[in-house]
Amino acid sequence: MNKTINMIVAGPRGKMGREALALIERTEHFRLVGCIDRKNDGMNLRDLEGMPAFDAPIFTDATEAFDQVNADVLIELTNPHAGYHHAKQALIHHVRPVVGTSGFSTDQLQELEELSASNATGIVIAPNFAIGAILMMRFAKEAAKYFPDVEIIEKHHDNKLDAPSGTAVKTAQLIQEVREKHKQGHPDEIETIEGARGADVDGMKIHSMRLPGFIAQQEVVFGMSGQTLTINHNSADRASFMSGVEFAVNEVMNREDFVYGLENLME
Amino acid sequence: MNKTINMIVAGPRGKMGREALALIERTEHFRLVGCIDRKNDGMNLRDLEGMPAFDAPIFTDATEAFDQVNADVLIELTNPHAGYHHAKQALIHHVRPVVGTSGFSTDQLQELEELSASNATGIVIAPNFAIGAILMMRFAKEAAKYFPDVEIIEKHHDNKLDAPSGTAVKTAQLIQEVREKHKQGHPDEIETIEGARGADVDGMKIHSMRLPGFIAQQEVVFGMSGQTLTINHNSADRASFMSGVEFAVNEVMNREDFVYGLENLME
Amino acid sequence: MNKTINMIVAGPRGKMGREALALIERTEHFRLVGCIDRKNDGMNLRDLEGMPAFDAPIFTDATEAFDQVNADVLIELTNPHAGYHHAKQALIHHVRPVVGTSGFSTDQLQELEELSASNATGIVIAPNFAIGAILMMRFAKEAAKYFPDVEIIEKHHDNKLDAPSGTAVKTAQLIQEVREKHKQGHPDEIETIEGARGADVDGMKIHSMRLPGFIAQQEVVFGMSGQTLTINHNSADRASFMSGVEFAVNEVMNREDFVYGLENLME
Amino acid sequence: MNKTINMIVAGPRGKMGREALALIERTEHFRLVGCIDRKNDGMNLRDLEGMPAFDAPIFTDATEAFDQVNADVLIELTNPHAGYHHAKQALIHHVRPVVGTSGFSTDQLQELEELSASNATGIVIAPNFAIGAILMMRFAKEAAKYFPDVEIIEKHHDNKLDAPSGTAVKTAQLIQEVREKHKQGHPDEIETIEGARGADVDGMKIHSMRLPGFIAQQEVVFGMSGQTLTINHNSADRASFMSGVEFAVNEVMNREDFVYGLENLME
Repeated sequence: MNKTINMIVAGPRGKMGREALALIERTEHFRLVGCIDRKNDGMNLRDLEGMPAFDAPIFTDATEAFDQVNADVLIELTNPHAGYHHAKQALIHHVRPVVGTSGFSTDQLQELEELSASNATGIVIAPNFAIGAILMMRFAKEAAKYFPDVEIIEKHHDNKLDAPSGTAVKTAQLIQEVREKHKQGHPDEIETIEGARGADVDGMKIHSMRLPGFIAQQEVVFGMSGQTLTINHNSADRASFMSGVEFAVNEVMNREDFVYGLENLME
Repeated sequence: MNKTINMIVAGPRGKMGREALALIERTEHFRLVGCIDRKNDGMNLRDLEGMPAFDAPIFTDATEAFDQVNADVLIELTNPHAGYHHAKQALIHHVRPVVGTSGFSTDQLQELEELSASNATGIVIAPNFAIGAILMMRFAKEAAKYFPDVEIIEKHHDNKLDAPSGTAVKTAQLIQEVREKHKQGHPDEIETIEGARGADVDGMKIHSMRLPGFIAQQEVVFGMSGQTLTINHNSADRASFMSGVEFAVNEVMNREDFVYGLENLME
Repeated sequence: MNKTINMIVAGPRGKMGREALALIERTEHFRLVGCIDRKNDGMNLRDLEGMPAFDAPIFTDATEAFDQVNADVLIELTNPHAGYHHAKQALIHHVRPVVGTSGFSTDQLQELEELSASNATGIVIAPNFAIGAILMMRFAKEAAKYFPDVEIIEKHHDNKLDAPSGTAVKTAQLIQEVREKHKQGHPDEIETIEGARGADVDGMKIHSMRLPGFIAQQEVVFGMSGQTLTINHNSADRASFMSGVEFAVNEVMNREDFVYGLENLME
Repeated sequence: MNKTINMIVAGPRGKMGREALALIERTEHFRLVGCIDRKNDGMNLRDLEGMPAFDAPIFTDATEAFDQVNADVLIELTNPHAGYHHAKQALIHHVRPVVGTSGFSTDQLQELEELSASNATGIVIAPNFAIGAILMMRFAKEAAKYFPDVEIIEKHHDNKLDAPSGTAVKTAQLIQEVREKHKQGHPDEIETIEGARGADVDGMKIHSMRLPGFIAQQEVVFGMSGQTLTINHNSADRASFMSGVEFAVNEVMNREDFVYGLENLME
């Protein structure tokens, strides 16, 4: 039903690259037509041991790749330095980049935006590809307009170093934009053991659980008299990333502009 | 901080009426100035046994109530027949009705809408005052645009007769408006015990749990590769209803039009 | 099917007393034969306004009650002072007490235990009648033998003053009896906002959420590589108390000894 | 702290075998001393491409393996036919087998039991190695003594063919052993959409959710007036399996008997 999308993957041997190849393999209208790889120039993907048997030529030089292969989309999964160069070459050749690499400088972002505009070629750059996490944050911000009392609880494996998680802090910041600042809980509440009430952000509380067996989960819990509303996102990182890449690839085909953040593709 | 809102409660001795009086008692800028009651005409609320000690005259005739007492808002909690009459008299007297009674006829609704317009007086009629339930449905419909696979599980006390609940069915209908119809689960899935996979609505599944100890809860669970997003609403009915009444009273003060459904007050 | 149990309720007009009357009303083999009340001596319960229409004589003097009425069980719901006296008189008259009052002195408990033994009459004294909470604690202690990593999260309404809850602390203490003390989480974990990781008990963490709309809930979460096990108790206090009273009344009929703590009735 | 346990893994190249090698690698007192593999006889594990760099000789013949290498435990992860033979040879050589293979015949089990007794050598055969799942079932059976009303909800990825899951059915059977059979829910309850109330087992209900993004989860929910108790097990299959293998290996060192089912190692 969907029109076939021809794509080049930059970074096919990395963890994310392999996931991207698996995504292409299982998606009927996705077709791999080439790879950009700092090694294996001139080879074909099907000849590399341990890689899926795609008939896809490998290029080390991005310009050469876009010159020789007819692609609609570049999936860019390398690093900021190479990624910027690949995305730029893609735009020059009217190939739409979907970029999972983060860490570009403001100058680089601006240059890519201008190039996108002058070439009327869409580009999506997304630091977070988890669609569910983006919706969780959007819904949390919306609910906070009606429920002034909210707590966040995030649950991660016990290899995680920092607490609270970046997503929890970002969610709290989004809520802060609409919530009237006030201290929650009983005004005279007492912690008989320090830390029981969690981390405080403007009177909101964040709790961080760390246990083996957890992967990555966040609950945003809103309460008012007689009811609670909870928004819960649960993810196994890499696979959820790929759902976002798939969405971005399909969407970028309808765009001629520069989009930063998956949330801006999601009306 | 908020400007005082003077209000008349119709049906003060019913279950909802008593909750409304409690709401007024605990809300600083809410003030009870009168009651409409089919009994006790000419008495004062503080003289009725078992009622809170408000100094509020009681009227059986609505016209008389609005003539003699200066009110901003009518909280209408009786029945469709009386409720229609009370709301109409309120609008005629430029008092804004907030109506928790459902079951008006189309003609009655149309007449109230015209009266609201001609008198430039706001009115809110809400069959469901649970803010959290309304947000749950809104978020579910929004999430369904990105997550085509969804199941609903609703949990109620075991006195409930019908399964699935009305809210579950309504949520499924809202999701149907945006979800491409398809059968979920494995195409060859088998129920080794009939009913295990729940009720089917266009390929979506609804599961109804009934246990003593539950009050009223609904989870809408969305899944895609590597992630799930869950929206959960939990309510203890009457108190959650009153949060919606409070919201509606505050909002109706800024309106000069007819609003049907709390969701339409929530931008 | 069950043999009828005749019972006297001490404290019928209190919140708990009223729940006990409702319990007797809805339980086929429970029968109210009298009340002990510091007021209304000589009256009958059915004559008191606002009380259920039981035909049950009211006594202010406990001795008189047990002399004149033939009861199997005393449900004692007053206060430590009167409660001790009532329970003692019951045992003397070979009536089995089920006592929801807490706060007896060690001397009083010892005296009741001796009286129970010498009169071969069962007595149950329970500071906590929530069967589910008792099972949650028992299961948590059992699971901790196999899962050394555990966190507790308890959720209460925002009128609660202290954090963590008494039940959470008691659960942690029970776990401590079997768990080898060790610090959980990453050894180098960092709180970027103080309190995020919760209250520390021997390296275990407890988190306390406080929101309007919560009643009383506790989750004990165990994690190990690849799996988590969660035990969750959710209660609406008074009704869950009565389930425990019902259980205790049925059990005490088979006992001739002194039982302190509902957990000791639950094999 | 723990005494080193020397072990042979049968089936090192399979999915489970690789997990077992990873387990040995990360467990300080576990040491791999050899492998049984139908291929690669006479080679060393460190020489096989794509395998962890253990210095462990590979044998195709089990007798030879136990003769030449000094092992405490055999981890058997092949198939019923080979597994039976490997376990038998292990017992003959006074090596304790921990067997994850299921599907032995009654005769084979009896023979292994006799051999274990005559050689005073412990053996553990476990069809289910998920410790959390075993505890969930044990707790569910225990809770059912006090809570007669229960429903099960199990959540799996949408590649699963059968509903309800085997674990859900087994849990229901364990509950049946203690629960008085009765129909739950309102006696007159009505399904307005067929299947809403789930699968029926003796009046208990089981609900099966199937969504991409789920792995394997089961909740057993007990309800009584005013409270609910939920036991929830969440697993990512292979890793949770290995926690059970680790537990069994440590336990089998203290045993001289035949143990069928991990639950029988867990007092």
